[in-house]
Amino acid sequence: MKVINVGLIGFGTVGSGLAEVLLSQKERMEKRSGLTIRLAKVADIAIAELPPQFSDVELTRDAAGMINDPEIDIIVELIGGIEPAKTFVMQAIEAGKHVVSANKALLSQEGKDIFAAAAAKGVEVGFEASVGGGIPVIKGLREGLVANKILSIMGIMNGTANYILTRMTDEGIAFDEVLKDAQEKGYAEADPTYDIEGIDTAHKLVILMTMAYGMNISLDDITIEGITSIEPVDIEFAREFGCRIKLLAISRNHEEHVEARVHPTMVPENHLLASINGAYNAIHFTGDTVGNVLFYGQGAGKMPTGSAVAADVMDIARDIQAGSVGRVPSLSYLPEHIGPLGITPIEELSCPFYFRISAKDVSGVLAEISGILAEHDISIESVLQKGREEQGPVSIVMRTHTAPEAAVSEAIAKIDALDVVEAPTVTIRILEEENDLE
Amino acid sequence: MKVINVGLIGFGTVGSGLAEVLLSQKERMEKRSGLTIRLAKVADIAIAELPPQFSDVELTRDAAGMINDPEIDIIVELIGGIEPAKTFVMQAIEAGKHVVSANKALLSQEGKDIFAAAAAKGVEVGFEASVGGGIPVIKGLREGLVANKILSIMGIMNGTANYILTRMTDEGIAFDEVLKDAQEKGYAEADPTYDIEGIDTAHKLVILMTMAYGMNISLDDITIEGITSIEPVDIEFAREFGCRIKLLAISRNHEEHVEARVHPTMVPENHLLASINGAYNAIHFTGDTVGNVLFYGQGAGKMPTGSAVAADVMDIARDIQAGSVGRVPSLSYLPEHIGPLGITPIEELSCPFYFRISAKDVSGVLAEISGILAEHDISIESVLQKGREEQGPVSIVMRTHTAPEAAVSEAIAKIDALDVVEAPTVTIRILEEENDLE
Repeated sequence: MKVINVGLIGFGTVGSGLAEVLLSQKERMEKRSGLTIRLAKVADIAIAELPPQFSDVELTRDAAGMINDPEIDIIVELIGGIEPAKTFVMQAIEAGKHVVSANKALLSQEGKDIFAAAAAKGVEVGFEASVGGGIPVIKGLREGLVANKILSIMGIMNGTANYILTRMTDEGIAFDEVLKDAQEKGYAEADPTYDIEGIDTAHKLVILMTMAYGMNISLDDITIEGITSIEPVDIEFAREFGCRIKLLAISRNHEEHVEARVHPTMVPENHLLASINGAYNAIHFTGDTVGNVLFYGQGAGKMPTGSAVAADVMDIARDIQAGSVGRVPSLSYLPEHIGPLGITPIEELSCPFYFRISAKDVSGVLAEISGILAEHDISIESVLQKGREEQGPVSIVMRTHTAPEAAVSEAIAKIDALDVVEAPTVTIRILEEENDLE
Repeated sequence: MKVINVGLIGFGTVGSGLAEVLLSQKERMEKRSGLTIRLAKVADIAIAELPPQFSDVELTRDAAGMINDPEIDIIVELIGGIEPAKTFVMQAIEAGKHVVSANKALLSQEGKDIFAAAAAKGVEVGFEASVGGGIPVIKGLREGLVANKILSIMGIMNGTANYILTRMTDEGIAFDEVLKDAQEKGYAEADPTYDIEGIDTAHKLVILMTMAYGMNISLDDITIEGITSIEPVDIEFAREFGCRIKLLAISRNHEEHVEARVHPTMVPENHLLASINGAYNAIHFTGDTVGNVLFYGQGAGKMPTGSAVAADVMDIARDIQAGSVGRVPSLSYLPEHIGPLGITPIEELSCPFYFRISAKDVSGVLAEISGILAEHDISIESVLQKGREEQGPVSIVMRTHTAPEAAVSEAIAKIDALDVVEAPTVTIRILEEENDLE
């Protein structure tokens, strides 16, 4: 049986997961392909030896040496971060090796160089595990939806953020408390910035938008808001409005330009995305022919990520075997059809909004605030005012009808400048029923 | 640009949908592949001419002639049913043509002949649209989950049945009434037997099980119950138990044998499958490495089905172009690794049950029924008895703890033989929390 040799860089959580997957699935993958996928070498500088079940795998500290080993067919990069990951990936491509990576930061920020080099060298770059962990969403988008104009992308694509929001929702506890617990249990990183500030989600949106629209896009093009200002009270009000708060990546296709944003969103309970809980991810596409499609599964974790990386390795192995390398363009579109496309300025969008205004409990406050909103043509659908507890400010909570972002920004700036307003107003966008893509 | 010529048999709803998809997506698919997919000919005996936008497509009544036309690369069969579809598909394979079909009845019943002939001739058979309409679930299972032992399959795979159950749930109206309305609106066929009796769902389960386990399976191996005996009162009781009633296909992998069943199931509301409404489909897999994965979308319809057929056509076109025909085995496993595998007899399974017993409103009835259940070691979790309206029988509704199928069958036979019991007892299986694959 033809043997495809894999060289793995990084034997951390995901790397060791891939090794376990390749070992446990070896026979099954042979029966599905007629190919033996062999983990030949591992390059890692932090471990002294591999676990005993990998006794026939060579461990090296010399990644560059492994990359240039003529025996190796595919280099899998699972160290994460930009450097030295980029250097290794570029070296591998230069050496004519196919590359598989789960590194969304690398691909979203340095993808242009990487894919250009790979195209020039005629090697493949697999990155299924970079979005949605084990979920086969990259393949689904690239091949399953090949006969579709993608009209929208909406996703819950960060398991840590969704885990935190789910526990806040189910248990009514505060963000900081859940985060601390999640860190202790290993569900959140010591530095959770990328997860909770929406940056990780934005990395994934960059990858999906590139593939969906055939466009060049960078992280700077995306409007990003994280979940750190969400309080249990917002979740409780969301529930009163029939919604759940989720950190969504959203992109809608307006032909000449496309939306690109990541922010907390109130999702109506009858929308499937409102039911995605815990560390799960879900990515929802609307295509002009297929309609609505959703892919759901574990967005991270050792074995799910290993499953996706192994699927990429198998895809490349099949192409090596069949002599069909480059059979499907990595980014869905042929390189010459990937070009610039405008980003819809966030100020030009409209949606219903949730406001939580912290104000002194004095007469006339509501009138003053309502007046400012009226001046900006922002129409209020409902108001809830919770009686203050003890001495603090009161929360005035509003749900607006669809309102333009620009008017909302201006009105909220004026409201926050009022003497009676005691803290910056919390604003959360609400997924519109008419855009409720079910 | 290389042109791949398609010959389409059947210009009904799905066939005309494919034609529209290939026309509207032509340029986009070119940019994604460097290939032109050209609908060259249509064979249909029921239409006099093609719509004007297809003026450059040749219409013929001679399917056999089209199949043998050397210009045609791929034959798409969209007439449905077993004959003459099978004859055309076999002729196409014999003529060395690749085949794409959305015909789940044909593939699940005659797949053995078809796939054997295709393997012998070295041609590909695409069937993405046969399960889950537009959802790329066949590709996801075959390629995305290649590094997984599939532990279970659970699916809502018939849009008509799910539409009927959803409307019964939301509006509290009776099965017959919803069915009639669905037929008038075109959501259900004039003869809805396959949809409402679970046969269509079973066809799809045959296809998924073949691919998931590498097994030979026929429709006769599947235990099938439809939804015709479900009444609004059952849906109401399900709600009181925190469940929704769904027509599920279920297969669990017990290594030496596998479950294979289609029946109405009470699904706990917190399970994602309980949130799949209307004509939508969802297929849930558990893999040993990926964990839980779910694919969701429109399970039928002209354009979604066209999207899936077009994706298959493109996959084959890429293999023709790259010289990699047969790159991925159609049924996931290589033909020599598809073999017999035992089916778990339904009598050997256990789950919690819902019973609705129609009994005369006389004293001692509940004691008599409870006694029979106790004799069979069936433990009752809760009982609801609705006061009778007017003179009719009362409904005694029970939810059991996990109980063996065999004991339940025997106990229900005894209960139904009681003089005080006035109609066959309705039994519905409940998806166990411990098997609640979230």
